[in-house]
Amino acid sequence: MTTTALSARDRMLAAQRAARTIGLLSDDRKSAALRAIADAIEAASADIVAANAEDLARGEAGGLSAALLDRLRLDEARVAALAAAVRDVAELPDPVGRVLDRRTVAGGVELTKVSVPFGVVGSIYEARPNVTVDIAALALRSGNAVVLRGGTAAEKTNAALVSAMRAALAAEGIDPEGIQTVDEFGREGARELMQARGIVDVLVPRGSAQLIETVVTESSVPVIETGAGVVHIVLDASAPLEWSRDIVVNAKVQRPSVCNAVETVLVHRAAADRLIGPVVAALQERGVTVHGDADVAARADGILPATDEDWATEYLGLDLAMRVVDDLDEALEHIRTYSTHHTESIITDDDASAERFLAEVDSAVVMANASTRFTDGAEFGFGAEVGISTQKLHARGPMGLPELTSSKWLARGAGQVRA
Amino acid sequence: MTTTALSARDRMLAAQRAARTIGLLSDDRKSAALRAIADAIEAASADIVAANAEDLARGEAGGLSAALLDRLRLDEARVAALAAAVRDVAELPDPVGRVLDRRTVAGGVELTKVSVPFGVVGSIYEARPNVTVDIAALALRSGNAVVLRGGTAAEKTNAALVSAMRAALAAEGIDPEGIQTVDEFGREGARELMQARGIVDVLVPRGSAQLIETVVTESSVPVIETGAGVVHIVLDASAPLEWSRDIVVNAKVQRPSVCNAVETVLVHRAAADRLIGPVVAALQERGVTVHGDADVAARADGILPATDEDWATEYLGLDLAMRVVDDLDEALEHIRTYSTHHTESIITDDDASAERFLAEVDSAVVMANASTRFTDGAEFGFGAEVGISTQKLHARGPMGLPELTSSKWLARGAGQVRA
Repeated sequence: MTTTALSARDRMLAAQRAARTIGLLSDDRKSAALRAIADAIEAASADIVAANAEDLARGEAGGLSAALLDRLRLDEARVAALAAAVRDVAELPDPVGRVLDRRTVAGGVELTKVSVPFGVVGSIYEARPNVTVDIAALALRSGNAVVLRGGTAAEKTNAALVSAMRAALAAEGIDPEGIQTVDEFGREGARELMQARGIVDVLVPRGSAQLIETVVTESSVPVIETGAGVVHIVLDASAPLEWSRDIVVNAKVQRPSVCNAVETVLVHRAAADRLIGPVVAALQERGVTVHGDADVAARADGILPATDEDWATEYLGLDLAMRVVDDLDEALEHIRTYSTHHTESIITDDDASAERFLAEVDSAVVMANASTRFTDGAEFGFGAEVGISTQKLHARGPMGLPELTSSKWLARGAGQVRA
Repeated sequence: MTTTALSARDRMLAAQRAARTIGLLSDDRKSAALRAIADAIEAASADIVAANAEDLARGEAGGLSAALLDRLRLDEARVAALAAAVRDVAELPDPVGRVLDRRTVAGGVELTKVSVPFGVVGSIYEARPNVTVDIAALALRSGNAVVLRGGTAAEKTNAALVSAMRAALAAEGIDPEGIQTVDEFGREGARELMQARGIVDVLVPRGSAQLIETVVTESSVPVIETGAGVVHIVLDASAPLEWSRDIVVNAKVQRPSVCNAVETVLVHRAAADRLIGPVVAALQERGVTVHGDADVAARADGILPATDEDWATEYLGLDLAMRVVDDLDEALEHIRTYSTHHTESIITDDDASAERFLAEVDSAVVMANASTRFTDGAEFGFGAEVGISTQKLHARGPMGLPELTSSKWLARGAGQVRA
C-alpha cells in the first residue's frame, strides 16, 4: 500500500503512532532531524520551485489576486530562506522535559510535573508554503507529529515540501509518518482533521478571521485561536505629542499587513485640539487614509467619514480609523465593544491612567507608551513564534515553543497507599 | 424588570458585566465575600433544606435512584459542610496577579506576564448541590463570574443556594450578577451556555462521561474536559507482592465510586503465578468481584469472564478487570487502547521498567509504586480542586485555583517604536 492510497484518517492515525516515538527523541536527535530537513529542502529546491510553478499557473488561470500569488510564490532564494528558518528552530532550546513543579506528598510520594509534547499538532492555514515548513519544524522541535492542511492553491508546493521533509526524517531513522498532509483530500480532509478528536491533540488555524472562525466553530479537536487584530491606541489627555505621533505612525506604517498593526486610534477630547492635527498629518504624509468621526474631521483635512463598520474593521493596509472620546471610560467601552483582544496601547504621561488601562483592558497584550508592533514572538525573545493567541485557554499572546507542549505529573513512590 | 424576567442570554451578559468589576477586586475583598457567602448559606439553611425537600419529593415521584437521591439530599449538617468548604476556599491564596514571566526588550520596554481571571466561568453538571456552591466559590476566589447549569432535578435547591450567595455579594457591595444560574431554562439554557462563545470564557463540565462528551461535542465555548477514569495498575515481573496487594486493594476499595479508583489490573506473565492468587484473594475478601481473562481464571477462583467491554468500563464500584500480559509492551498497548488518560501506575522493583512506564504512558498522572487514589487536588496540596483534567490543553491532572486563571502581558514603555 503506497502512502497515496491512505485515507485522511489513516494518515492521522499514522501520525499518532509516529508521535509515540518522536515524543521520546532526545534534544540532539530532534535538532539533527531539523538540520537534515533544512538540507533536504535546499537539495530539493528545483523540484519545489517547479511544483510551485504549477500552483502559480493554476492560480493565475483561476484568477488569484496578485497579493495571493505573491504569498504563494517560491523561488530559489525563498526556498533557501525556508531552510534557514528551519536551522534557526533547530538551535532553539528543547521545550520538552522542563520541570514545571515538584512536590513531595503523602508519606514520601515524589511528584514532578514535566513538560511533554502534545502528541499530534494539526494546522489549517491558507496558501502560504512557508507555514507548511514553519509549523512542521516547530512541531518536531517540540516532539510532536504534525498533520498539515494548507490551501488547495498551494497543493503541489506543499506536497513537494512535505515529501522532502519526510525523506529527511526517514534518512535520520525517524518515522516519516510524523509529518503528514491532508491537502489532497480537499475540504473533506479539513473536515476530518477538525473532527479527529482523540487522534489530533490540538489544532492551530492560521489565516484570515473567516478561516479561524470556521475552525473554531466546526472543530471538536481543541483549538488555539490565533489572530485577528482590531488593535487600538488610546491618546490620553496627557499624551506627549512626540510619543503619540511616533508610536501611531510606527504601529500603522511599519508593516501595515500584520495583525499587530494599529487599526483604530481613540483620542481623549482634552487632547484632541493638540494632537489630532499633527498625528493625522504625519500619517497622511506616509500615505495613510484616515477615517474619522466628526470631531476628527473638524480638526484635520482629508478625513473620510468613519462608520460603525470602520470601528470593527481590520484594514491590514494603509487605512486607519480615528475617534474622539470624552474620557478614558469611553475609550475602554469602545475597546470592549470592538477589540479582538489582541493588543491595545495607551499613550499617556499619567501613571494612574496607564495602570488603569493595563488593569482593565482584557487583551493578550496591553501596553503603555509602546508601539503595538512589539507584540511578536521574536520581539518578546521567544526565538520562534507559533502564532499569537487571542484566546484565554492554554496560551495568550505570542506563543513560543513551550506553548506547543502539555504537561504530565510523574509520581514516584515506594508502596504508598491513601489513608 | 425582575431577575426572573431575564433570558438565559441576558443573564450571561450580566455575568460578563459583573466580571469586569469582580476581576479587579482585591484579595481581601474576595475572601470577605466568600466568608459572607458561607454565613448567608448557613443563615438560609432552613430555606435551602425546604427547597431541597421539594426536589427530593419530585425526584422520588419521578423514580430517581436511591444513589441519585442521596447525592441530591441536603440536611442542616450538609448545608453546614457546604458553608465550611466555602470558608476553606476563602483562606486559599489569591491566584490572580501572580507574575509568571518578566522580560525587558526592545530599547527598554518592560514586559510582565501576570495571571488574570478568565472572566466568566461556566459549569454544566448533574444534580449535586455541592457543586453549585463549590464552583461558585472557586470561581469567585479566582476573580471570575460564574454561570451555573445544574441538573433539573436539583433546580429548587440550586435556586435557594444561588439566591443566598447573590444576596451575600450584594451585601458586600459586589455585583450579584456575578453568580448566575440558567437552570430554569432547562435544556435550552444548557444549549445557550454551550454556545455563548465571546461571553463565557471557559466551560467546565462535571459529571458522567456522557455529560462531558455532550459538552465537548456541542460547545463552541472552550471546554476543560474533566473526568472519566478507566485507571490501570500494571504489576510488573518484579512487582513486590506486598506493594501489589496493598496498592491494588487501596486503589479499588478505599473509595470505589471516584474517578481515580483503579478499574483494570494488568499482570506480567512472569509474575502471574506469584501475584494473581494473593491479590485476587485480598480483593475478594473486601467484596470485590474480579472479571478476568482465561490466564487469570486459571490462577484464582471466583473469576467472572472478562470481555472487551470490561476493559473499556469505568465500574465506579466493587468490580475490577484483570488480564495477564506477555510483557510491558503489551501492557502499554492495552493502556493506549483503553485508557482515558487519567491515571496509571506500575508496581515494580525494576527502575528501568518504572522509568519507561513514566515516560511512555500518555496520561495526566503516571505513577510508579503508588496508589492511583493519590490523583487528587487535596493530596497534591492544592487546597481545593476544580476537577481533574484529562485533556492536554491549559491544564492536565488535578486543577487548583491557578487553573481558573488566564494570563496577560503588560508592556510598559517610554515611547519605544519598532525598528
